[in-house]
Amino acid sequence: MSPVITLLTDFGLRDAYVGAMKGVILGINPKARIVDLTHEIEPQNVKQAAYLLKTAYHYFPAGSVHVAVVDPGVGTERRPIAARLGQWTFVAPDNGLLTYAIQREDGPRVVEIVNPRYMLPGVSGTFHGRDIFAPAAARLSLGAPLSDLGPEVPDPVLLPPPPQPAGDVYPGSVIHVDRFGNCITDIEEAPFRRWATQAVTMEAGGRTIRGLAAAYGEAAPGEAVALFGSSGHLEMAVTMGSAQLVLGLHIGSAVLLRRGQG
Amino acid sequence: MSPVITLLTDFGLRDAYVGAMKGVILGINPKARIVDLTHEIEPQNVKQAAYLLKTAYHYFPAGSVHVAVVDPGVGTERRPIAARLGQWTFVAPDNGLLTYAIQREDGPRVVEIVNPRYMLPGVSGTFHGRDIFAPAAARLSLGAPLSDLGPEVPDPVLLPPPPQPAGDVYPGSVIHVDRFGNCITDIEEAPFRRWATQAVTMEAGGRTIRGLAAAYGEAAPGEAVALFGSSGHLEMAVTMGSAQLVLGLHIGSAVLLRRGQG
Amino acid sequence: MSPVITLLTDFGLRDAYVGAMKGVILGINPKARIVDLTHEIEPQNVKQAAYLLKTAYHYFPAGSVHVAVVDPGVGTERRPIAARLGQWTFVAPDNGLLTYAIQREDGPRVVEIVNPRYMLPGVSGTFHGRDIFAPAAARLSLGAPLSDLGPEVPDPVLLPPPPQPAGDVYPGSVIHVDRFGNCITDIEEAPFRRWATQAVTMEAGGRTIRGLAAAYGEAAPGEAVALFGSSGHLEMAVTMGSAQLVLGLHIGSAVLLRRGQG
Repeated sequence: MSPVITLLTDFGLRDAYVGAMKGVILGINPKARIVDLTHEIEPQNVKQAAYLLKTAYHYFPAGSVHVAVVDPGVGTERRPIAARLGQWTFVAPDNGLLTYAIQREDGPRVVEIVNPRYMLPGVSGTFHGRDIFAPAAARLSLGAPLSDLGPEVPDPVLLPPPPQPAGDVYPGSVIHVDRFGNCITDIEEAPFRRWATQAVTMEAGGRTIRGLAAAYGEAAPGEAVALFGSSGHLEMAVTMGSAQLVLGLHIGSAVLLRRGQG
Repeated sequence: MSPVITLLTDFGLRDAYVGAMKGVILGINPKARIVDLTHEIEPQNVKQAAYLLKTAYHYFPAGSVHVAVVDPGVGTERRPIAARLGQWTFVAPDNGLLTYAIQREDGPRVVEIVNPRYMLPGVSGTFHGRDIFAPAAARLSLGAPLSDLGPEVPDPVLLPPPPQPAGDVYPGSVIHVDRFGNCITDIEEAPFRRWATQAVTMEAGGRTIRGLAAAYGEAAPGEAVALFGSSGHLEMAVTMGSAQLVLGLHIGSAVLLRRGQG
Repeated sequence: MSPVITLLTDFGLRDAYVGAMKGVILGINPKARIVDLTHEIEPQNVKQAAYLLKTAYHYFPAGSVHVAVVDPGVGTERRPIAARLGQWTFVAPDNGLLTYAIQREDGPRVVEIVNPRYMLPGVSGTFHGRDIFAPAAARLSLGAPLSDLGPEVPDPVLLPPPPQPAGDVYPGSVIHVDRFGNCITDIEEAPFRRWATQAVTMEAGGRTIRGLAAAYGEAAPGEAVALFGSSGHLEMAVTMGSAQLVLGLHIGSAVLLRRGQG
């Protein structure tokens, strides 16, 4: 078996942390095919990590193991978990990283990783990515049964629900800025569709964007547009430019939709 | 078969875009060996991307598939193409990315990718890297015949020809700055050799560099030198320092050669 | 055989240098599993590279080949070397990169790479990573005997010994700053333990840190702590923050321990 194991962390690439995780994985399953999703998550930003995992996990073949380690609670009592969600297996700290996959996939099964046989000997207090999550993922990629890792977790931690509209206003915030400066928000398409029976106006960074675009490139160069991207989140983009720079936004910036003024 | 598939994009590494492309590839060819050339191309800089692809593609084993996605025209009528150039296969938008390989390799064959069986179902308007180029590359790595993808393209888009000398002056510009601050220009060795029967002077960033060096390290620390690098492009370097910083250059900066003053 | 080959360089990721090395490796050993340790070493910082290699190499399976290329002396007389250290093989310029592994592993064997059959034809003066180290690593991963590469090197270059205490003061310096802003020093645990029979005070960036912490998270958010990390080096961290920013440190910054004032 040459299963795929993906890695998503906030470890960056200037250290050898990710390399050490890969060494541990290949020591247990020499045939694993390791793919980096990203290691540039803002340090300890679980919400951004959960979003990026959501955008990518389902493009991998059935049986792939996704490892996500953004772990502000490392060294505390937060549980390490493994989960079977749809056709994929996940390994992560129990802090909301798997929220979208848990909500989207049928029949989710989540267990706590407690069995020491699935860990490196001498687990450190600071680097569970290497000592717990990497070896668990490698064993699962070899076919270890989920139930061997530990007891069922009936109540995995989920992120707070996304913002909801209140009357004619709908507040949200930026959860990710991509390489092209597109600013992705936590406003999701399903509640938006139920709400916006009329045209809308978006306020972001002191600017107003009227209406929603159907696609990139509808606007003139330099003009900001709002649209739902392929991930189902409302995002802001600037044709031939950067919404981040033009609107002065960053992760955490507030945005506001107003109904009936588009 | 475990063929190599390389990826060169302007997607950066802080999103999961590259990861999604790899997921699609491994879903089609689980044995593909995926190698990143770079994902740090300046957004939408086709010229820089073509240069970097030129420096690397021929170091890969025969049969490797090179995927290049720098795609300012995504969503427009620009064609997606696949090509067999020398011992390698290429997949890219038809915008000049493959210029050097098309010019350098004998018997180039280029086709347009139109067969929907080689695409993901439901191609998006914004992410052809994942929906068109990744699946086409994976299929080609499994041995799909080029002609199955679509009709021959007799006129693939090529970059404008490199700058040429005009009398005793030879204008060029910086097309890439490497990690060490070396500044690579679009002045190529063959036309230069035909031109410079005498010594030359290079002007860049308000400074003058007299003569060409044969190798790095000929100059004193901190001194700028001009030389032809292994890619056959004229570049500027500073021993134990950064030509980018010392000369104040960036991608797009103009440089000028003068003949007979070295 | 599908052996692991790791790469650690100062080449960064915005060029195709690392990609070309991987192409060369896969051309010689198509089954090699290539893992990046890091390519973000500060240009030409051998000390930082040696430290990061030390933190990661032993997490890889026995038989892995580690390639380290941080090479200020490329093009000079410095020797390219290959080494068998413990269960691993290493390839690097002979400039101290392998210091920790040479000192830590029993029965080190080091040879100079002189056999041209282990190099690419037409070795360049500037890119030994691609022309010498990558092909040597690929051949070694296929089982080539070390002695085939060249003669034994009885005196590989080692880094200067780490700083030692002098009476009641113990000077050191920052050799690496990780992604979270933790600042790692060249003060090592063994000489420290012999010295500090009493409490200590650490001075760094104009601030004073009293005592050593046993683990991250002992201090209040925003407070700086000093502790020995898992690599056995003294480091400074700030709970929920960046020691680099809070203390104003960078690679090369001086730190000082004082005994008896903790």
